[in-house]
Amino acid sequence: MSHPTLAFIGTGIMGAPMVRCLLREGFAVRAWNRSQAKATALAADGAQVAGSAHAAATGANLLICMLSDGPTCTEVLFGEHGAALALRPGALVIVMSSIPVDVATDHARRCAELGLGYLDAPVSGGERGAREGSLAIMVGGTPEAFEQGRVALAAMGRPVLVGPAGSGELAKLVNQLIVASTIATVAEGLLLAERGGADPAKVHEALMGGFVDSPIWRQHGQRMIDDQFTPGGPAKWQLKDTRTALAHAHSLGLSLPVGTLVDGLFSALVDAGDGDLDHAALIRQLRRHNRLPE
Amino acid sequence: MSHPTLAFIGTGIMGAPMVRCLLREGFAVRAWNRSQAKATALAADGAQVAGSAHAAATGANLLICMLSDGPTCTEVLFGEHGAALALRPGALVIVMSSIPVDVATDHARRCAELGLGYLDAPVSGGERGAREGSLAIMVGGTPEAFEQGRVALAAMGRPVLVGPAGSGELAKLVNQLIVASTIATVAEGLLLAERGGADPAKVHEALMGGFVDSPIWRQHGQRMIDDQFTPGGPAKWQLKDTRTALAHAHSLGLSLPVGTLVDGLFSALVDAGDGDLDHAALIRQLRRHNRLPE
Repeated sequence: MSHPTLAFIGTGIMGAPMVRCLLREGFAVRAWNRSQAKATALAADGAQVAGSAHAAATGANLLICMLSDGPTCTEVLFGEHGAALALRPGALVIVMSSIPVDVATDHARRCAELGLGYLDAPVSGGERGAREGSLAIMVGGTPEAFEQGRVALAAMGRPVLVGPAGSGELAKLVNQLIVASTIATVAEGLLLAERGGADPAKVHEALMGGFVDSPIWRQHGQRMIDDQFTPGGPAKWQLKDTRTALAHAHSLGLSLPVGTLVDGLFSALVDAGDGDLDHAALIRQLRRHNRLPE
Repeated sequence: MSHPTLAFIGTGIMGAPMVRCLLREGFAVRAWNRSQAKATALAADGAQVAGSAHAAATGANLLICMLSDGPTCTEVLFGEHGAALALRPGALVIVMSSIPVDVATDHARRCAELGLGYLDAPVSGGERGAREGSLAIMVGGTPEAFEQGRVALAAMGRPVLVGPAGSGELAKLVNQLIVASTIATVAEGLLLAERGGADPAKVHEALMGGFVDSPIWRQHGQRMIDDQFTPGGPAKWQLKDTRTALAHAHSLGLSLPVGTLVDGLFSALVDAGDGDLDHAALIRQLRRHNRLPE
């Protein structure tokens, strides 16, 4: 059985290596990007380069969208000459951008009206994961839509269906909230070690392999010890994520005290002018909070 | 070069398998335990069983103490007929119990007065780590004392010298504080997933291998999903640990906002009668906080 014709919209830092994964797995990909050079670069890898999102989508069975934010996805999919309108009946739209939960559920509703399937499928794992096809892919939608998109998603990483439309974006928010709070607690632990007279680098080493070991303990902990905050993930984006996660929790009537406190710490960090530093720089805010030299 | 004669005081759940590790590595071990049956059981493995802590220590070059708490260690080491008084001059005392930092620094001072070396070397990794000789061992003391005790410690796990006397206990507090706060943030994340309509078990699966993956995400997260809180580590002990860590931070003039908030959550959990449940039961407190069914 041959793979469906696939339109890929948004071939930037993440999208381009994701297209290459799909091409390697034998998908015929029509790529489009607003700055056309980024799509043209993929022609050498076997992609067809389309002149517009609408042209890329025309007659395709599957459309993947990897654009910068929710409004951009909505405009490209459903605006005048929108890509969704050009798909075959019964085709599937997969939005892999990180967008608000309610934008994803709105997309799902609009796709259903057009007779299209929809999955929200944001990713974690960064550019490296995109290159290696090892992205964690959190998928929201119906089991039928998931089945329809599974092979394409599996070409880019490890897709898991976590619930109905919007749930993939929700899982991404959960991820970002836990990342933020774990960074804060790692920072508190290393600060306690340092102020108590231990060598934080040695404490960092001693606790590896134990309960607190994690990519955040290893990578962000090391940045704190080295006082080296070149991003990585800038603190201002981390704040945007915790803001979105907490606003969504609030809309569900849910109070998350640790996340709320950590959001406040990131807010103070950004207010102090450290928004462009890596989110591990939260330890600087804890130092300020304690009137210690940064 | 033969190993030094070693006295091992406290052969309970952790101590007994630690003695077996030392015997396997060729150490001559004289064991003592208050309930003598627990020491006698080690005779079959090749340990000599002593009639008192003092008798175990008499003429030994190395004494390891794995008792339940600080006051018990202090009494057995330095009380009337104390074990430390019976050691050879120049011998080394290693306390591997989790005790307050200031008790450890007091031990170090008293040992120095007796012409003895001292290390505080609490462990992480539980009974399994003790059996396998794979404990994380956080060591405080001088480099000379560490060198003197290194081979014995390495028989039980992975020792790392993290700073002067007391620093091992400090590192253990850092560990416990990060464990507590990470449990709280994992609980908040899973609660957000659940209330937002995703399947928490699927979100748990989807996020494995990513930034938030950790033994706590895997083990404690799974307990939360299964609503299964047989300890494990009881919440009341977790509270004792966060209390001790925060009191020590306070004594250093250090404010740790996330740890303080999490300590309050564990305190409310214990007050609500859940102290004997596993510390992962913190999610029950977050449900109560949100007036949700537990």
